[in-house]
Amino acid sequence: MQRLKERIQRDGKNLGGGILKVDGFINHQVDPVLMDACGAELARRFRSVGATRVLTAEISGIAPALMTARYLNLPVVYARKSKPITMPDTVYLTIAPSHTKGHMVELIVSPEFLSAGERVLIIDDFLASGATILGLVRLALAAGAAIVGIGTLIEKTFEGGRKVLSYLNIPIESLVCIRSMEGDQIEFGDCNIDG
Amino acid sequence: MQRLKERIQRDGKNLGGGILKVDGFINHQVDPVLMDACGAELARRFRSVGATRVLTAEISGIAPALMTARYLNLPVVYARKSKPITMPDTVYLTIAPSHTKGHMVELIVSPEFLSAGERVLIIDDFLASGATILGLVRLALAAGAAIVGIGTLIEKTFEGGRKVLSYLNIPIESLVCIRSMEGDQIEFGDCNIDG
Repeated sequence: MQRLKERIQRDGKNLGGGILKVDGFINHQVDPVLMDACGAELARRFRSVGATRVLTAEISGIAPALMTARYLNLPVVYARKSKPITMPDTVYLTIAPSHTKGHMVELIVSPEFLSAGERVLIIDDFLASGATILGLVRLALAAGAAIVGIGTLIEKTFEGGRKVLSYLNIPIESLVCIRSMEGDQIEFGDCNIDG
Repeated sequence: MQRLKERIQRDGKNLGGGILKVDGFINHQVDPVLMDACGAELARRFRSVGATRVLTAEISGIAPALMTARYLNLPVVYARKSKPITMPDTVYLTIAPSHTKGHMVELIVSPEFLSAGERVLIIDDFLASGATILGLVRLALAAGAAIVGIGTLIEKTFEGGRKVLSYLNIPIESLVCIRSMEGDQIEFGDCNIDG
């Protein structure tokens, strides 16, 4: 998606160690008009998969998932990283390594909002190693739901997440793919290079 | 706002202790169509305050703030509760008590996205005691910004937050006001009762 790519070229920053700083328009500060356009495009790509619910992980997945879900007219569930007191005692919980925090985090979904027979579309801001998305996959499968697609704003193809998720045999769509972040460069590439 | 009120009547639950469970449509699971309508209404009410930025707190403030900001065509900044590695070393940080977590949380904003001269519209899901919103107020004032309005989805008027914030002498708008949560009841009331 050209518009997102241009924004990354203008305002994104390679901090080294595979960390892409996009907190001026995706996380921390969000450009709602850009995010709306990203949601519209992800919704277009997944229009025909028959999803009944969008699933993401707090925090930075919320904005793209919400905008996508709005265009698909579906409820969106964000997995919590700590269990609020409003949640029932028995929940679906998995752990996943956090890319930007350097430790394991919990991903928790209430059984009230994820059930057997659901068709789940997973949306997140990044596809990197695939660890967070695999956590969401485990939650959906624990609930007896099917996963019908995975969509992200930015994929770092050099981290191999697409290959890790390929066993699911479902469509994986990223709006922008980055194939290399050597030095302070950000090199864009084809999203289906490992596909 | 009638539509939100009806949804609370249908799907909200009084858990006791002043805790309103709305995680089927506002937090955890979000109804994006309802949230869009709430954002449109908050944007309408604050159209004329001359805001340059929307400020909220992660996690559950993100959805209403994003939708409001989209209608106002403004960037939205969400205060983080832990400092990610993408944030500069020097930040604005304050602490505030968390209503649903029972302990103090940090609220952190990068100086990159909040500056002197900004006109800040604060949007959050709840106005209860006003503690979180006061935290956001402190962050904005620390940055030298002006606060031009406060908007929330649901106000629990019996917790007195509106009075706490009244010294700011700015418009405070809530889409639905709850005046009492005795027993398992949810009693709606006038938003300007303490105004």
